[in-house]
Amino acid sequence: MSGDHGLSVTVPAALSCLEQIPALHVVLVGDQPLIEAELRRLKAAKSDPRRRIHHASEVVGMDEAPTKALRNKKDSSMRVAIDLVKDGAAQAMVSAGNTGALMATAKFVLKTLPGIDRPAIVSAIPSVSGHVHMLDLGANAECTSEQLFQFAVMGSALITAMQGKPQPRVALLNIGSEEIKGNDVIKGAAALLQASSLNYIGFVEGDGIFLSDVDLVVCDGFVGNVALKTGEGVAKMIRQFLKDEFTASFLNKLAAVAAMPALKALGKRIDPRHYNGASFLGLSCTVVKSHGGADAVGFANAIRVGVREVELDVPRRISVLLGQTLQTRSEPIAPTA
Amino acid sequence: MSGDHGLSVTVPAALSCLEQIPALHVVLVGDQPLIEAELRRLKAAKSDPRRRIHHASEVVGMDEAPTKALRNKKDSSMRVAIDLVKDGAAQAMVSAGNTGALMATAKFVLKTLPGIDRPAIVSAIPSVSGHVHMLDLGANAECTSEQLFQFAVMGSALITAMQGKPQPRVALLNIGSEEIKGNDVIKGAAALLQASSLNYIGFVEGDGIFLSDVDLVVCDGFVGNVALKTGEGVAKMIRQFLKDEFTASFLNKLAAVAAMPALKALGKRIDPRHYNGASFLGLSCTVVKSHGGADAVGFANAIRVGVREVELDVPRRISVLLGQTLQTRSEPIAPTA
Repeated sequence: MSGDHGLSVTVPAALSCLEQIPALHVVLVGDQPLIEAELRRLKAAKSDPRRRIHHASEVVGMDEAPTKALRNKKDSSMRVAIDLVKDGAAQAMVSAGNTGALMATAKFVLKTLPGIDRPAIVSAIPSVSGHVHMLDLGANAECTSEQLFQFAVMGSALITAMQGKPQPRVALLNIGSEEIKGNDVIKGAAALLQASSLNYIGFVEGDGIFLSDVDLVVCDGFVGNVALKTGEGVAKMIRQFLKDEFTASFLNKLAAVAAMPALKALGKRIDPRHYNGASFLGLSCTVVKSHGGADAVGFANAIRVGVREVELDVPRRISVLLGQTLQTRSEPIAPTA
Repeated sequence: MSGDHGLSVTVPAALSCLEQIPALHVVLVGDQPLIEAELRRLKAAKSDPRRRIHHASEVVGMDEAPTKALRNKKDSSMRVAIDLVKDGAAQAMVSAGNTGALMATAKFVLKTLPGIDRPAIVSAIPSVSGHVHMLDLGANAECTSEQLFQFAVMGSALITAMQGKPQPRVALLNIGSEEIKGNDVIKGAAALLQASSLNYIGFVEGDGIFLSDVDLVVCDGFVGNVALKTGEGVAKMIRQFLKDEFTASFLNKLAAVAAMPALKALGKRIDPRHYNGASFLGLSCTVVKSHGGADAVGFANAIRVGVREVELDVPRRISVLLGQTLQTRSEPIAPTA
């Protein structure tokens, strides 16, 4: 129901995913008459055994305080959809709504996995080597070393599941690559990672997110959110500059026509819609957050992220890896000569 | 002496600035025989009344611990150059060396201005509206609300001096534009700024650094450094992608020739060399840090930043504005109906 564009994005995205993914069943949760109207507008089939509507009378506003939404809106589309996951009527929930409210509600209803303090938001983002996963992207403004360690475990399990990499390369985001830099929380997390069975490769700085050979970048939610949005901002700025320059003169406009295939290929490589869909890792079930401003192409990608995580059983894999790494950690360290 | 390329960058940059800026006098501080050899290699005039060498026998390593450098290397080029500023033999110091050691030494020798707890690193960076200043970029990994407020005062004074803007637009970097987000330090800084005479416009998120109409973005040094380097990383990644796409096929290679003027104009607009030279604000004198990897074009830009700050008397202006804003703050707030 929510996000910047509501049903005009979520419903067509759901329909296109139903077409493309034969195993998918979709429950559209929200205002039934409005959803039905949107289905009619889109000329969708009158009925589809893999599609149903579940009515919910309320909507959480994009700027509503998370605690208020959690307390007062028990029949919001967000809450009802999460309840369906809890009850086993659905295996994953995808939303373009209020991030804070979604996190608070998902954590309250679904609970975190044993051994996980707080869920974290993870997403793939483009990099020179293809893409890199990063977390936390905004759920936890302040973190302990132990939490950063848990994020590394969750992210590693996700990447192993999604990409089949047995030992994903994990780095901590820091402001210097030398060990003398960074604050105590990051130094503590580095020590925990170094002593663990994860494939920890050390620190990366901001530019290293995009330029180094790393699979997972771990940081607190404040820094991660700033880095993610800074990256989006620079990409948008450069797109604007390219547009300015390719329309600056008649000759440049001609050149733009010739350059279009290359520019389109570039645009596709950094198209944020193909990276839309951030997972809330650490919950007992799969919850995926779409960018509030995503269009139907972007929202469909978020649905696909949810489908893959269900197929690959990501929450269980996180539990298993967490158990393994904690066990390794508690073993006595072998004496060295 | 230091930075990634040493004298092969700093000496030619100094010579080109001497040619371009008639009022400039340069003291080259470092190993005299090596500097003389570099001058000979560059076929510089045997003598120049505006150029002299001041010998220093040691060099601070790029990875040396700041406290060690400060304690043990009293005859390093870095320390001697800062001493020259302290003694009035020079008005500004420019270095491509170890950032941490430069900050520690400059703070110890030159002291901060009255009312300033800690210096901060500021630089201009490109944005859609031309450019934006941002601080702190890495000197202070953790900050109090009061320190963020001081950064806002220092940055405002700098922008007013350098650009003649009487009331620069100041924003705080945060992870949400709504007031419910952010941590206590940022909320406290927002309250201080709102009650001050500065032109505080509210929060920006990471993308807003580059896309909004703001003159100064204030944040702690950890977040600022990550944002700065993230921006550099994304710009480099997109440059790489552009290169990939424009060499992907014979037709694209042809298009690249036509597109060259536009691509070159883009490159110039985001060329980090034209933004090289970060000031250490809050010291009693001007100290400018060049990127360690800068070439002679970049290092010359850092020298020009130093020249402008001396001409415009930036440290004194910061003192004056700080006095004014603190005075406004202590005045009783007028009762409202």
